Amino acid sequence: MESIDRIALLTGGGDCPGLNAVIRSVTKAALRNGMEVLGVQDGFGGLVKGQFTLLGEKDVSGILPRGGTILGTSNRDNPFRFPMSNENGETLVEDASDIAIENMKQVGAGALIVTGGDGTQSIALDFSHLGVNVVGIPKTIDNDLMATDVTFGFDSALQCATDAVDKLHTTAESHHRVMVCEVMGRNSGWIALMSGIAGGGDIVLIPEIPFTFDGIARSIHERRDHGKKFSIIVVAEGAPLPDGQQVGWVASSGNMVLGGIGARVAREVEARTGIESRVTVLGHLQRGGTPSPFDRILATRFGVSAVEMVLNGEFGCMVALKTPEIVSVPLEEAVKNQRKVPADGELVRFARSVGTAFGD
Amino acid sequence: MESIDRIALLTGGGDCPGLNAVIRSVTKAALRNGMEVLGVQDGFGGLVKGQFTLLGEKDVSGILPRGGTILGTSNRDNPFRFPMSNENGETLVEDASDIAIENMKQVGAGALIVTGGDGTQSIALDFSHLGVNVVGIPKTIDNDLMATDVTFGFDSALQCATDAVDKLHTTAESHHRVMVCEVMGRNSGWIALMSGIAGGGDIVLIPEIPFTFDGIARSIHERRDHGKKFSIIVVAEGAPLPDGQQVGWVASSGNMVLGGIGARVAREVEARTGIESRVTVLGHLQRGGTPSPFDRILATRFGVSAVEMVLNGEFGCMVALKTPEIVSVPLEEAVKNQRKVPADGELVRFARSVGTAFGD
Amino acid sequence: MESIDRIALLTGGGDCPGLNAVIRSVTKAALRNGMEVLGVQDGFGGLVKGQFTLLGEKDVSGILPRGGTILGTSNRDNPFRFPMSNENGETLVEDASDIAIENMKQVGAGALIVTGGDGTQSIALDFSHLGVNVVGIPKTIDNDLMATDVTFGFDSALQCATDAVDKLHTTAESHHRVMVCEVMGRNSGWIALMSGIAGGGDIVLIPEIPFTFDGIARSIHERRDHGKKFSIIVVAEGAPLPDGQQVGWVASSGNMVLGGIGARVAREVEARTGIESRVTVLGHLQRGGTPSPFDRILATRFGVSAVEMVLNGEFGCMVALKTPEIVSVPLEEAVKNQRKVPADGELVRFARSVGTAFGD
Amino acid sequence: MESIDRIALLTGGGDCPGLNAVIRSVTKAALRNGMEVLGVQDGFGGLVKGQFTLLGEKDVSGILPRGGTILGTSNRDNPFRFPMSNENGETLVEDASDIAIENMKQVGAGALIVTGGDGTQSIALDFSHLGVNVVGIPKTIDNDLMATDVTFGFDSALQCATDAVDKLHTTAESHHRVMVCEVMGRNSGWIALMSGIAGGGDIVLIPEIPFTFDGIARSIHERRDHGKKFSIIVVAEGAPLPDGQQVGWVASSGNMVLGGIGARVAREVEARTGIESRVTVLGHLQRGGTPSPFDRILATRFGVSAVEMVLNGEFGCMVALKTPEIVSVPLEEAVKNQRKVPADGELVRFARSVGTAFGD
Repeated sequence: MESIDRIALLTGGGDCPGLNAVIRSVTKAALRNGMEVLGVQDGFGGLVKGQFTLLGEKDVSGILPRGGTILGTSNRDNPFRFPMSNENGETLVEDASDIAIENMKQVGAGALIVTGGDGTQSIALDFSHLGVNVVGIPKTIDNDLMATDVTFGFDSALQCATDAVDKLHTTAESHHRVMVCEVMGRNSGWIALMSGIAGGGDIVLIPEIPFTFDGIARSIHERRDHGKKFSIIVVAEGAPLPDGQQVGWVASSGNMVLGGIGARVAREVEARTGIESRVTVLGHLQRGGTPSPFDRILATRFGVSAVEMVLNGEFGCMVALKTPEIVSVPLEEAVKNQRKVPADGELVRFARSVGTAFGD
Repeated sequence: MESIDRIALLTGGGDCPGLNAVIRSVTKAALRNGMEVLGVQDGFGGLVKGQFTLLGEKDVSGILPRGGTILGTSNRDNPFRFPMSNENGETLVEDASDIAIENMKQVGAGALIVTGGDGTQSIALDFSHLGVNVVGIPKTIDNDLMATDVTFGFDSALQCATDAVDKLHTTAESHHRVMVCEVMGRNSGWIALMSGIAGGGDIVLIPEIPFTFDGIARSIHERRDHGKKFSIIVVAEGAPLPDGQQVGWVASSGNMVLGGIGARVAREVEARTGIESRVTVLGHLQRGGTPSPFDRILATRFGVSAVEMVLNGEFGCMVALKTPEIVSVPLEEAVKNQRKVPADGELVRFARSVGTAFGD
Repeated sequence: MESIDRIALLTGGGDCPGLNAVIRSVTKAALRNGMEVLGVQDGFGGLVKGQFTLLGEKDVSGILPRGGTILGTSNRDNPFRFPMSNENGETLVEDASDIAIENMKQVGAGALIVTGGDGTQSIALDFSHLGVNVVGIPKTIDNDLMATDVTFGFDSALQCATDAVDKLHTTAESHHRVMVCEVMGRNSGWIALMSGIAGGGDIVLIPEIPFTFDGIARSIHERRDHGKKFSIIVVAEGAPLPDGQQVGWVASSGNMVLGGIGARVAREVEARTGIESRVTVLGHLQRGGTPSPFDRILATRFGVSAVEMVLNGEFGCMVALKTPEIVSVPLEEAVKNQRKVPADGELVRFARSVGTAFGD
Repeated sequence: MESIDRIALLTGGGDCPGLNAVIRSVTKAALRNGMEVLGVQDGFGGLVKGQFTLLGEKDVSGILPRGGTILGTSNRDNPFRFPMSNENGETLVEDASDIAIENMKQVGAGALIVTGGDGTQSIALDFSHLGVNVVGIPKTIDNDLMATDVTFGFDSALQCATDAVDKLHTTAESHHRVMVCEVMGRNSGWIALMSGIAGGGDIVLIPEIPFTFDGIARSIHERRDHGKKFSIIVVAEGAPLPDGQQVGWVASSGNMVLGGIGARVAREVEARTGIESRVTVLGHLQRGGTPSPFDRILATRFGVSAVEMVLNGEFGCMVALKTPEIVSVPLEEAVKNQRKVPADGELVRFARSVGTAFGD
């Protein structure tokens, strides 16, 4: 095997606290092992466009505590279906993976470290199949990757959500209201469940446990019968409506909230209980801010491990946490399974034991 | 003048960080001066219903750092137009102020300290006209009371808003997006302007400065021309739409966001610039959490001052901050004028000097 | 086996974020299972003195986010060597364990849940040998218990330490200084190592890796040669001085710092490098404040598990985290082994890879 | 008057949150007005050494939320008494002010903006007397400058101190201890008094109010008699010992704490009351971290105002806050008077009203 002098590094998908810690540790560990790191701009799009920047010690100095990614990211670009202008000026979706691979050759990058969630790792796997020396680093703020115990970003998002639940408590108590807090989690309820337990949420609504509005109202009435005039509901954005309806996102404009699940829950609860109900949607706040110590450390460990895997010629794999160790798992396996909250698992049982209801 | 042995204390209007600090300092200062404090439950409603609780040292121990109000509050009850059931079981709105006054007599409360915003202080003034010994303590998270330099709650809300703007920066930068942050301020733009300056917001939209969507787009394009691919917009909830439209709150259901001003701004910006735009609505988060040191201190000073005014027989007045002193102002004056951001004042000029645009 | 109606619950040893979360979850889970909880005041001392308080839903409401322990604690009282006054008015150390056991019988407590570190659990084990139905919940802010992956409190302490390292960075950079941050860890370097990685500390000094002052100075000179004029040193309070000296704690007065290890390191570094050096000793700050979400969740899980163990008649054991599960381990095993940082383990290797030196 | 094209900007004295906000706003406002800004490295020393850096938009982008100063600072260099090597290789202290002035001419700097405390502003005044166009920006974390209502940095330090007092409460309560928190304030007690009020400190010791150890013990005994087993003492580092002793700083090594005032207080309290007492010295933590919104805004206002003063040819002056306006005051006046806590003023009276004792 030829020795590798240069590693290309990209961050893909939604931004998340800890990406800069990864960039820093990959760069530092690579330099310490005699390799250079080429940062790819704005995710896979930059790989097609050939946007590389050599990363030195100075570039990664001071970025450890900062959220986001200095490389930029994109959650849309896929080199295998890339929008390209043809000679007629039309934009067509084409396979530009060969261009990406050629770009890597041009700059002498013998390996590619890809940081991202399952969508991004699927693309990484496709490149691996084309012979690119790929190492994956998992990133999912929702914690829905089965292949790793947890990834960086989740703990920071959990802090944000728990902090919000703490804050809503004072208003709920002072006004005898129901406060609904909508948190991230399209397919899994980890943030909702964990922030619900951590913040003392009274009702937690997650994709994994079907709920009814009557079930929620019953729990609120029970609390009232015990003298508790307020309730906190934590709901994952992906919790399914009991009536099978879709929550009202206007498809043509991704940015307009026409009442997500949180607003719907607040409305139905108010209608059923007569108790004033309010909703707060945390949204992008959960992705922002300085990473928690746990996330910084995990991101740092992942970065160093990925470089070690490049040194060892261990490609087509992703680093993962199997507490307390960092291990490597095949990319195939990594992208296959989603981690769901076990509806009858220990955590849900424990939550019920301290009085959390699930609207079921 | 008869000496006063007991003071009734109520908190009215929306909750706000610092109310508990007021309750603590009124209670401690009163006890130290040989008076007792009767806490009124849930604002003016509790005064009509005769819901009083004697507050001792233990009741106010440990509440200084806690948000909300241990007395409960309400932003709807007005004793002068109070919903009462008549003999036919119908609910009619009646003047129940005499009941409230009688209740105070029953429990021996010789004075009433009212903590609240302009709506609450207007009711306090009406009671004052009926001969009740009233002292007001201003509370407005929006900072829109002219009679005082500032009130407690504002600084804490500003921290929450600034923290959010900080957090949105990382996503904006990483994704080259426009991030819109909608903050409180129905009639005045203080939180938006101040958090915009503190957080380095690129565009600030406030009720006091009419804006156009084209004006916003122009600023974003200018930034792009200077190599800045992202922008942060801070918008006060009460900033008026250029087209005279109302933002879509569904009147029949206070809790459902059908796209406030923030969502509308994001949509229009994306349409005009082609740059991905996202909105975050801070909502009740701004009222929650532990009060900032400034707010705790100001609330404490207000509470002690109010008790001193009771001791001095200085009624029909409200405490106020005229930096660096606490003064007393007539309630008439206090409720008359709203504090607006001067559109051509120093703060706006300074903000423009560091590059903040106002969409005008 | 007789069914158990009442559980006594005590917290012993130094206070730590998450104790209240334990108290809350034990109480809630017990009540839900038809048992009552008797809180013991101030640790094992309260057991001898018979100081019990019945804990209801209201007593544990709102305590989840609060640091410390509402039960009080003590890190000195041992019922097996308890100071008792005899008839001559002299205070003698005696075995008062029988009194403690009798007290439990008097109040009908059929089981005892003991939350504490290895010292506290050793006493719990002694009671277990006397036939008391004991369940242990581990608590060690230093993370030095081998029997569990981690305990609550550690993550919160890590946040405090990392936040401090972040803060010291700005002064270090602005003044081109060496800033020394002394953190907890008498026997193990977990907090120092983890906060060093999370905060980007340049040099980490821990009990497990012997260091020399010349080794430290060498690292600082190397950094200077690379253009870095400042350095951050994170040192565990228990890191041993190279010269075998003791740091100067005055034995007769535990509260007086006569220069701990941090001050000594700063002095020696300044002498060897000529660079202005300053020390900050975090001390009790690391024990205070609201527990992190992780700690609140883990504490909640431990509490529910302990109640389940009481229900199952599983005594003489301690709950423990074997990620991702809560398991039970014999108390004998729990108190036997200390968890040390493996000097040649993955974490230290990773830290070295991102440039952290260890003064060796 | 010749028009000024370039401004030199330096930061002197101890670092403090908000310095970067000043640097950013001076640079942005200057560029907007057609002037360039030359950052001087490391305070007045850099002016003598001719270390200037042209500051562009990019250099000040993203620094608003960051503590410290990107220019570096020094709290020792004085151009009027500067250590210079002579031809024999000896270092002599000489007047190097002419070199500094010549350096400014060389780079075309027509004005000098000096950010710093009273020591730094005194040097600025000396330069002003030599004909340099100087504008001062006040910086004092202790809030001890009479000429301005407050400066940036103080609010952030107050947050740090209040947060610490909050944290120490949980340990104090859990262990029934006296916790002593030593905060900044060599000559004035603002941070101690304000954080004492904000954090609910039981006893506050400041330079302006002489205390005795017996006075402190009396307050602690009174609390115990009211059932309060713990106490929090906040002490300013400059609070004078009753016995006229110096606290034990080792002069030859500024970094070694041999028991400051906090440790002494803890020791004496423990001796007099028998209650376990512990001390925490906040030290440099108070200077670190992100500036509070208030400090960022004030620093931004100061920076823009200073540039406006340069434009208006208003030299020999310092910007200052006279709430709610920014005004300019002669440097002579600015450096003359220290702001002390009025021992019989409103704040101290209010603090006593809520139960705070002063050891007197």
